[in-house]
Amino acid sequence: MHGSIFTALSALFGTRTYPPQYPINDLAQSPAMGWNNWNAYACNVSETMLLSTAAKVAALGLRDSGYQYIVLDDCWSNGRDHNGELQPDREKFPSGMKYVADQLHSMGYLFGMYSDAGSYTCGKYAGSLGYEEKDAKTFASWNVDYLKYDNCFNEGLSGTPKITAERYRVMKNALKATGRPILYSMCNWGEDLPWNWAHTVANSWRMSGDIYDYFNRPDARCPCTGEETYCAYPGYHCSVMNILNKAAHIIHTSQPGAWNDLDMLEVGNGGMDDEEYKAHFSMWAALKSPLLLGNDVSVLDAKALSILTNPAIIAVSQDPLGVAASRMYRYYVNDTDQYGQGEIQLWSGPLSGGDQVVILLNAGNISRTMKASLEEVFRQQTGISPEVSNDWDIYDLWANRMDLELAQSIIDGTGKPSPEVYYNATETSYKDGLAGGNPVLLGKLVGKVGAGGTIEREVARHGVSMLRLRKTVGSAKLQSAVQQPFELSGTYTN
Amino acid sequence: MHGSIFTALSALFGTRTYPPQYPINDLAQSPAMGWNNWNAYACNVSETMLLSTAAKVAALGLRDSGYQYIVLDDCWSNGRDHNGELQPDREKFPSGMKYVADQLHSMGYLFGMYSDAGSYTCGKYAGSLGYEEKDAKTFASWNVDYLKYDNCFNEGLSGTPKITAERYRVMKNALKATGRPILYSMCNWGEDLPWNWAHTVANSWRMSGDIYDYFNRPDARCPCTGEETYCAYPGYHCSVMNILNKAAHIIHTSQPGAWNDLDMLEVGNGGMDDEEYKAHFSMWAALKSPLLLGNDVSVLDAKALSILTNPAIIAVSQDPLGVAASRMYRYYVNDTDQYGQGEIQLWSGPLSGGDQVVILLNAGNISRTMKASLEEVFRQQTGISPEVSNDWDIYDLWANRMDLELAQSIIDGTGKPSPEVYYNATETSYKDGLAGGNPVLLGKLVGKVGAGGTIEREVARHGVSMLRLRKTVGSAKLQSAVQQPFELSGTYTN
Amino acid sequence: MHGSIFTALSALFGTRTYPPQYPINDLAQSPAMGWNNWNAYACNVSETMLLSTAAKVAALGLRDSGYQYIVLDDCWSNGRDHNGELQPDREKFPSGMKYVADQLHSMGYLFGMYSDAGSYTCGKYAGSLGYEEKDAKTFASWNVDYLKYDNCFNEGLSGTPKITAERYRVMKNALKATGRPILYSMCNWGEDLPWNWAHTVANSWRMSGDIYDYFNRPDARCPCTGEETYCAYPGYHCSVMNILNKAAHIIHTSQPGAWNDLDMLEVGNGGMDDEEYKAHFSMWAALKSPLLLGNDVSVLDAKALSILTNPAIIAVSQDPLGVAASRMYRYYVNDTDQYGQGEIQLWSGPLSGGDQVVILLNAGNISRTMKASLEEVFRQQTGISPEVSNDWDIYDLWANRMDLELAQSIIDGTGKPSPEVYYNATETSYKDGLAGGNPVLLGKLVGKVGAGGTIEREVARHGVSMLRLRKTVGSAKLQSAVQQPFELSGTYTN
Amino acid sequence: MHGSIFTALSALFGTRTYPPQYPINDLAQSPAMGWNNWNAYACNVSETMLLSTAAKVAALGLRDSGYQYIVLDDCWSNGRDHNGELQPDREKFPSGMKYVADQLHSMGYLFGMYSDAGSYTCGKYAGSLGYEEKDAKTFASWNVDYLKYDNCFNEGLSGTPKITAERYRVMKNALKATGRPILYSMCNWGEDLPWNWAHTVANSWRMSGDIYDYFNRPDARCPCTGEETYCAYPGYHCSVMNILNKAAHIIHTSQPGAWNDLDMLEVGNGGMDDEEYKAHFSMWAALKSPLLLGNDVSVLDAKALSILTNPAIIAVSQDPLGVAASRMYRYYVNDTDQYGQGEIQLWSGPLSGGDQVVILLNAGNISRTMKASLEEVFRQQTGISPEVSNDWDIYDLWANRMDLELAQSIIDGTGKPSPEVYYNATETSYKDGLAGGNPVLLGKLVGKVGAGGTIEREVARHGVSMLRLRKTVGSAKLQSAVQQPFELSGTYTN
Repeated sequence: MHGSIFTALSALFGTRTYPPQYPINDLAQSPAMGWNNWNAYACNVSETMLLSTAAKVAALGLRDSGYQYIVLDDCWSNGRDHNGELQPDREKFPSGMKYVADQLHSMGYLFGMYSDAGSYTCGKYAGSLGYEEKDAKTFASWNVDYLKYDNCFNEGLSGTPKITAERYRVMKNALKATGRPILYSMCNWGEDLPWNWAHTVANSWRMSGDIYDYFNRPDARCPCTGEETYCAYPGYHCSVMNILNKAAHIIHTSQPGAWNDLDMLEVGNGGMDDEEYKAHFSMWAALKSPLLLGNDVSVLDAKALSILTNPAIIAVSQDPLGVAASRMYRYYVNDTDQYGQGEIQLWSGPLSGGDQVVILLNAGNISRTMKASLEEVFRQQTGISPEVSNDWDIYDLWANRMDLELAQSIIDGTGKPSPEVYYNATETSYKDGLAGGNPVLLGKLVGKVGAGGTIEREVARHGVSMLRLRKTVGSAKLQSAVQQPFELSGTYTN
Repeated sequence: MHGSIFTALSALFGTRTYPPQYPINDLAQSPAMGWNNWNAYACNVSETMLLSTAAKVAALGLRDSGYQYIVLDDCWSNGRDHNGELQPDREKFPSGMKYVADQLHSMGYLFGMYSDAGSYTCGKYAGSLGYEEKDAKTFASWNVDYLKYDNCFNEGLSGTPKITAERYRVMKNALKATGRPILYSMCNWGEDLPWNWAHTVANSWRMSGDIYDYFNRPDARCPCTGEETYCAYPGYHCSVMNILNKAAHIIHTSQPGAWNDLDMLEVGNGGMDDEEYKAHFSMWAALKSPLLLGNDVSVLDAKALSILTNPAIIAVSQDPLGVAASRMYRYYVNDTDQYGQGEIQLWSGPLSGGDQVVILLNAGNISRTMKASLEEVFRQQTGISPEVSNDWDIYDLWANRMDLELAQSIIDGTGKPSPEVYYNATETSYKDGLAGGNPVLLGKLVGKVGAGGTIEREVARHGVSMLRLRKTVGSAKLQSAVQQPFELSGTYTN
Repeated sequence: MHGSIFTALSALFGTRTYPPQYPINDLAQSPAMGWNNWNAYACNVSETMLLSTAAKVAALGLRDSGYQYIVLDDCWSNGRDHNGELQPDREKFPSGMKYVADQLHSMGYLFGMYSDAGSYTCGKYAGSLGYEEKDAKTFASWNVDYLKYDNCFNEGLSGTPKITAERYRVMKNALKATGRPILYSMCNWGEDLPWNWAHTVANSWRMSGDIYDYFNRPDARCPCTGEETYCAYPGYHCSVMNILNKAAHIIHTSQPGAWNDLDMLEVGNGGMDDEEYKAHFSMWAALKSPLLLGNDVSVLDAKALSILTNPAIIAVSQDPLGVAASRMYRYYVNDTDQYGQGEIQLWSGPLSGGDQVVILLNAGNISRTMKASLEEVFRQQTGISPEVSNDWDIYDLWANRMDLELAQSIIDGTGKPSPEVYYNATETSYKDGLAGGNPVLLGKLVGKVGAGGTIEREVARHGVSMLRLRKTVGSAKLQSAVQQPFELSGTYTN
Repeated sequence: MHGSIFTALSALFGTRTYPPQYPINDLAQSPAMGWNNWNAYACNVSETMLLSTAAKVAALGLRDSGYQYIVLDDCWSNGRDHNGELQPDREKFPSGMKYVADQLHSMGYLFGMYSDAGSYTCGKYAGSLGYEEKDAKTFASWNVDYLKYDNCFNEGLSGTPKITAERYRVMKNALKATGRPILYSMCNWGEDLPWNWAHTVANSWRMSGDIYDYFNRPDARCPCTGEETYCAYPGYHCSVMNILNKAAHIIHTSQPGAWNDLDMLEVGNGGMDDEEYKAHFSMWAALKSPLLLGNDVSVLDAKALSILTNPAIIAVSQDPLGVAASRMYRYYVNDTDQYGQGEIQLWSGPLSGGDQVVILLNAGNISRTMKASLEEVFRQQTGISPEVSNDWDIYDLWANRMDLELAQSIIDGTGKPSPEVYYNATETSYKDGLAGGNPVLLGKLVGKVGAGGTIEREVARHGVSMLRLRKTVGSAKLQSAVQQPFELSGTYTN
């Protein structure tokens, strides 16, 4: 068997304890959440920027929503000293890196650093290729908890999975040898098919070129679209839909401790509208991507805050079962946008406790009623799951989104998040919250669907309807079962 | 010359004795038949499950139909002991593996085990990478007869045929060194083109991503369709037609002792209708795939049983010539199904004794009359075979299928298969049965086609007409020869 | 610069002497011509078959037309003796291989043998992988002049040009070390892009999957079409047009001593009509493929003989300039054949002495008037060649084809080829014949085209018009220049 | 992060000093400019040809326009002496190579030589593979300033970035070891994705097959078009548009010291019209390709001279920011040319001092009004740049092109370039000229565009409008902002 196992095992043994030697460490049992400075600050990094951001992230309630890693990206370095040890740029980080780590720890965060599996970082600072053991020791001595490990200037050490795995495995072993638990975030843009092998190398791996702040705009610099069965140009300027269409083929390889990384979040950066950002965040959560904020939190707006803190969505991301949703259908539609793009998709995946997440994704250019039959929702490798014969309650995961007035008041420092619309994961983990049936994690009950029935939802242009199905206690059915697959005017493609 | 030799040699020297050093052993002279627990039980394996299933397989007459390997898939292990030797999970297998083997042997079976050419099995139990010699000895000491060898967690050791062949060859050599004949079933999903080189490495090799229980439904997780000339994502959730359309390009590389494996059978698992399962089983037989049952045999229904025991179909699979059928035409048709799929195909291949198997495959959405001119049936590398000038008797290989009442009575334990519709290969091999002209292996004589003529058959939606042509003794012709290739309204593609 | 040099240098220094160390030997200064038994006899090889064929080839005048290599293909071997030396099968070759070589030499032939860069030959006899030095010595000791070196059972030693080149280079060096000049014919079906690097490894290399005896029929077993920019499945059952459409991209890499091999000739094997065989032979000659007869010469018909001995066509093949023609245009046309194929092409290339070969190739389904402007004929990397401003005499290379009565009388042993329609290359090489202006090498003068003018020729369905342009002495022009590129109703693609 | 850094860093730190160890040397801080003999003279090289050309280049004012490298291509060698050292062909270079270098230096030039990372050069002279150290020393001893390093006869040492990088890195290290600064120009036609890794190997690398002198004519010998996401056949006979459409995906990887090389210029060679040559030169400049003249300067015409010396275009090429323009949109249009090609594109990129270069490229078959909204011009990875809110002056970079009478007089030796239309970079570098605001580097002010507005320009068939935007001092706006993206009748593709 093959990929099937990834889903099947998780379904069978939701809370199974993996053999101790697998995955590479005990970290990232759910996808990492945090903040990374790159999108907002690029190379303008400093101790002040990082610590003040961390304070703001906490003040906005994001830390307690679960964004627990503060990750410093490129440009922090001043090269190596005479012993070959990496040195921080003391103008930017006058107190050194251990100080930063300790400050962050005291604020309740974990601290992420950045290096590169090449001669130079992307910003042309000293890379770690050939210095892996030394640098891992340095990071450990600084109390680092996370390493983003990039792919620039890699001296051409790529071209087969073997070549790339060998290069990235050196740092894995070096980190392990330090004895400190350090989440290892591999960033080679999906080169050499890491979803096939990186589970024994890293806690997550980027699976595409870099995201950019557009929902579905093609860009020459991100030439692969997911239609091809090999991509030699991961590129950058990849839209949300571009990344999703690539992920559809390989996302099932994610599992606790080892995740496909769809790249940092663009929510709030201004290039998409509210529906688009909701769709972006929903899909990243359902596909179990790490959730790394990429904002300048000092200018975060109310809409973005209410998206990023939505507990019902994050609960899907952090669900202990750890199975990414799969794409169940894809249709091209005629209502294309200015770039000629138009399609709709259904995604579905199991959650812990027998629940199921369902996402109706409308990347067409008009609002529409979308349908998902339980047959499509519960399609499996071998026939349709028996779950199709249950009655299900439908929870809308966006219905209880924090209202914008409250969000604005939090931003303004005048309000506090209330437990009806906000979840404090520092107090109780999502896993425990789900086990305890905390209603804020479930969204809003909006209806039922009977055995063999079909869910219908109105979905905004470039938006999603994201639902949690939970087995109905009782038997009333809202709809009769459909005998035939429903018809759609688009062109089926998947 | 190239692939041509594979067919040409077999045609010229049907019963030729291969040089003793080739293939890797004397096993799998015809494609392996058996039962594997994965599809039905996944990780829920146990001594009880395995032995009771074996008993049931025998009781249903399947063992004597030829399904002689009982293969235990993943999740049987409890890791390694202090000597590094694999240990069975004693809760699942309290009497140990040798006991299981001995029991199966006493029931007339051969015993198959499972491991993985990686650090972990797909289920994350101990893999054999780096332990090949030790594990091969262990398997031999347990009297194992067959090894399915998977590809998960392979540490990135892929990317060229050289890298992959090196990895899989280690286990081949280790098995050989044990002195015990162990059928070596390689399962790397077609990565790195095993059909080009695995003949000297294994007895069979998977050539595609994992099958799922649908006839022709595209799925994002199986992105390659066979249209592309390189597939970096074998995937899973591959439909029957998807796998056939990939096999069409490379199936001619199969030969006695070394077979392309199209993956386990889905017959009876519920996702396809009777015509679809008949088509699936027919094609797997004609293309000389190993035939591994994937059912829960305790709930096998009458239809499935009457498919899986059809002696006229199995006789094609086990024909001693060992030449896979080739695709002779492919047309897209306009009557597409709900997924936009619609095509028809003709497959043809030589059998021992000068017979020819012909399959008219209708993957369109309506029943239709399909045609096969003898010119298409006997097309060869150099012109049309002289066989086109013979008159041929036509045997329908599904016409004498066991009736469902009888099948149900066997399932119920009240009936016995009768020699008119059933063949006992334990008593007489298919090879000897064919040589002896046993009529149950031939299907039903339904007509003749004259020299240069055209066969016409009604073929159900998503179904096949599978025929055996045998040279007519005498000369009456049912049809006059067609001078021109017939026309079809679809789009030729092949 | 790049490929350009291949053409440019030859054009500039037509008779240039290459540095002595290049190519790998002094052989194959023009493409090899000969006969190979595979297509006609497959594994039914023997001393009798080979020598009687050689006698027949001579009696038909083919030897003196230039077919000087008699090549024994697979299945001649009886494995290795206790010293590891290859042994002929003494039942097939009772007098041994040296005897065969000596006999062939005494008949005026050169002798070609066959082995394989793998563990087994395609017919599963002993392969030379790991035995290269030993086998090269054996071949040299048998007075072998030519080695066809196949690619079956190569243990997966492929996947990059480096891996494949390393494998084939071993035999090159072994052959060189024998001191005997042995033409090295590499047959790895174009895997790993040999046209990029095999010039320093072999005298020729196959560049596609195996040919089959059809002009333009797609076949699933030859999945690449030349439209794709990478082909991982060379396959077999490749039609003439399939191979040409692949060659169009890379044929310019051929040069004296190092040729792209388009595979053996099918002329006369019955699967194509006379126009198709003429087209096949014309293109193989103009593209400088080795010309290996694949017929059973004992049943060769008059049409085939008159094609294969056409001196005006062979003179293009053996032209000392050694530059393959290039495709100058390609249009899809609407008159498609039963397989949906339809296109027309123009090919053009320089010949020694300032002549130019032009082929109008009609792979449409009807006869048509085709045009070639001198601008298209003389298009170069940097603008249009000044040759466009010359006036040109047009010679039709098929107009003086041997008439079928004469050909039949030669086959019957009652007639002799006459010097008006036949050329004896044993007496005078093509090079010298061309230098001496032998008219039989020029075809028939059929017209002129003025500076900047356009050639128009009627071309049969699935046929060619093959022309030699020679600068007009004088100035009369048949046509005025066209100012605008002519228009065509098809779709330009090239 | 990834490619994004290439643009982002340059934008943030326009004049940033890179760490001393990066790139491989201090050369090529802007793309190299010069003359190479290949296109005009091929193998007809000699001391006389080279030095007389250099004198002519100077006399035409091209040297002082910045074309400072005189590069000798292939065919200068007479092989190696008994010490294995490369020897010039003394018939062609009677005074030896050091003499040539010294003469060129005295004329104010730098001297470029040629060799090949294979056994032979493309012209089959001695290659440097295996002789890298020796040859680098030889070149240094001859006072060579530049090495073009080709890829012919490379013994198959390719297939992964690792294999190719290893081969080319040997010469990099050998050149470095000489202590002489030698610009290293890698010419492997884009094989194995050099844009991903060659920054630490070379100062520039070819990224496509060889150019030919056509604007947009497809040619079978250049089969990749830029639509595919992997190209195994770089080929040659690649048109200007073909190369641009490949560059669009990867050009952002260029940076000071390490440039994608789009191949030598065809301007003036006769295969394109004036608009096409202007477009070719404009795009090569904006994409920061090295600018190597490929003309026979003794027959250069006035149009070509006035293109090649246009200071406003060259100032974009040599802009110290060193960021290549990116493609912002691409539309297929219906007005296709004789080859079925038709498209329009917008390119945009930052320049030093806050300016922006904008190119409207019309590869349709008719003149048209083209539009570029500031939103498209200033689109970035994260949303639209705030620059969209500025008002901008528009400078047309072709409006002040040297008139043809003056150009002709310079060619005739009777005229002198005037500072209104010509820039002397020998006196003042482009960098200093730009910093000083020299108006000849800015083109002609032709209008303004207000914040959020749209630029409209008439663009000739197969031509460009190339503009420099500079922030308006003041606030008058020519056009009101457009709220919606403009519509176009073509098909968006990018």
